[in-house]
Amino acid sequence: MLKQYCRERAALVDRELDRLVPLAGNPELIYEAMRYSLFAGGKRLRPILLMASADTVGGDGETYLHMACGLEMIHTYSLIHDDLPAMDNDDFRRGKPTCHKVFGESMAILAGDGLLTNAFEVMLSQPAVDHEVILAVVRDIAIAAGARGMVGGQVVDILATGKSLDAETLRFMHQAKTGALFKAAVKNGAILAGANPRQVLKLCEYAEQFGLAFQITDDILDVVGNQDKIGKPVGSDNKNGKVTYVTLYTLAGAQEMAREAVEKAVAALSEFNHKAAVLEELARYLITRDS
Amino acid sequence: MLKQYCRERAALVDRELDRLVPLAGNPELIYEAMRYSLFAGGKRLRPILLMASADTVGGDGETYLHMACGLEMIHTYSLIHDDLPAMDNDDFRRGKPTCHKVFGESMAILAGDGLLTNAFEVMLSQPAVDHEVILAVVRDIAIAAGARGMVGGQVVDILATGKSLDAETLRFMHQAKTGALFKAAVKNGAILAGANPRQVLKLCEYAEQFGLAFQITDDILDVVGNQDKIGKPVGSDNKNGKVTYVTLYTLAGAQEMAREAVEKAVAALSEFNHKAAVLEELARYLITRDS
Repeated sequence: MLKQYCRERAALVDRELDRLVPLAGNPELIYEAMRYSLFAGGKRLRPILLMASADTVGGDGETYLHMACGLEMIHTYSLIHDDLPAMDNDDFRRGKPTCHKVFGESMAILAGDGLLTNAFEVMLSQPAVDHEVILAVVRDIAIAAGARGMVGGQVVDILATGKSLDAETLRFMHQAKTGALFKAAVKNGAILAGANPRQVLKLCEYAEQFGLAFQITDDILDVVGNQDKIGKPVGSDNKNGKVTYVTLYTLAGAQEMAREAVEKAVAALSEFNHKAAVLEELARYLITRDS
Repeated sequence: MLKQYCRERAALVDRELDRLVPLAGNPELIYEAMRYSLFAGGKRLRPILLMASADTVGGDGETYLHMACGLEMIHTYSLIHDDLPAMDNDDFRRGKPTCHKVFGESMAILAGDGLLTNAFEVMLSQPAVDHEVILAVVRDIAIAAGARGMVGGQVVDILATGKSLDAETLRFMHQAKTGALFKAAVKNGAILAGANPRQVLKLCEYAEQFGLAFQITDDILDVVGNQDKIGKPVGSDNKNGKVTYVTLYTLAGAQEMAREAVEKAVAALSEFNHKAAVLEELARYLITRDS
């Protein structure tokens, strides 16, 4: 069921992104660069989480497609900038040359800037939602993506590379760098669909554990993954001198932590019964994923 | 009168930016980098234009301080990214080393990303304005700053460097790169203050001519300016192989064009009478400015 659900929702997101970020722009090159990264094989996990969360509280996730697409645009901008020579200096992402390898460094910086800026245009154009709710949701997403969230996490990551890092800082870094946007997706999907405060709280608990499990399994894949499937060289964290959940807790320890986080994520969904089936499967999938 | 008005409004903006982007963040370094560029001596022209435009249609510009500060944050991010080695590779801005010279390239990219993202948080927190109006205004500013506006203009600029450029492309580039945000400031200041469609139209005419005059006089200053006052080496456009209004039209021709644009800007204000005094003086100041 999960595969079918994700395939359908990802197709919806792809179609809408194709419409929202068309090639027709002037100058065309910036749209080419933005679209290159936007359609480079992302799993659309954040849009799917937002829509599934809305479904979970009884809404119709597809209604919030603009918000979902805005999240994917923000996620894509962050990957483009993270890959830059001045940052992680990665040549490949999802098995394809990174944006700056194809379009050059200046165009990659600008493609990221364009995606980030236009993500706000897209989210603020969300139809069929009360204006006050749109304001609150987009503001919350800006906080999650900004200096107290994703950008701040990347700063900690850059500063920490090649240095030792304690468990608390590692967790803070990931919470900010990837956890905040996952949480914003789940939380705001629920808010858009009119969830009550207790439902939002429970879904935030789910999202925090989901984000933790995602990051731990990401670190595990960097050690035991298949290069063809994850689309980048295995062992790159080690090569780049990065402290990970595997280096801090061993492979077996990290696997156990990931399982625990998934169980806590699932436990937070208990009161939603069968309506949370997709969110539950998404969390369980993290343990078995190979990319 | 203008000097006094600008000094007071700039002080307001400075105080609010200091509050909105505090040093207290974690990690502190990203806030240091953002604040370094935010408080590097900018004239706060875009915030002043937004507030003066609101005054012109009978509103109180100071009410819209959050929107004004958001514009300045977006403007500052664009300067940080434009100065990067992969872009214009400028070492000085307003007489001070550029952000990447002080904090390094990765931190400068992230400081720009943080300012851009948090600008939306700030603007969406604008108090005392109807939610629907906030949505429309911030969406319009996102369009002006994005791939169809500022980002797109910078792309044309990068692609054109070292190449010949016709008058139409030069004008398009500046309209997108700097004109769009000036226009967004003036237009949305009026909209926030409840201007009617005809007032908005007239102020947009003003803003377009203001933006044109600003760019032409910017090109003139790069030739005849005083390095100490403009804060960067004179002749940098020539050195970088950039086509400017001076290279296309000669110095005298560019000066005449700037005067014409200012007269057209002032003419667009006629029906506002004395209420447009600040906007009129701001346009006239462009001709005489030395930085």
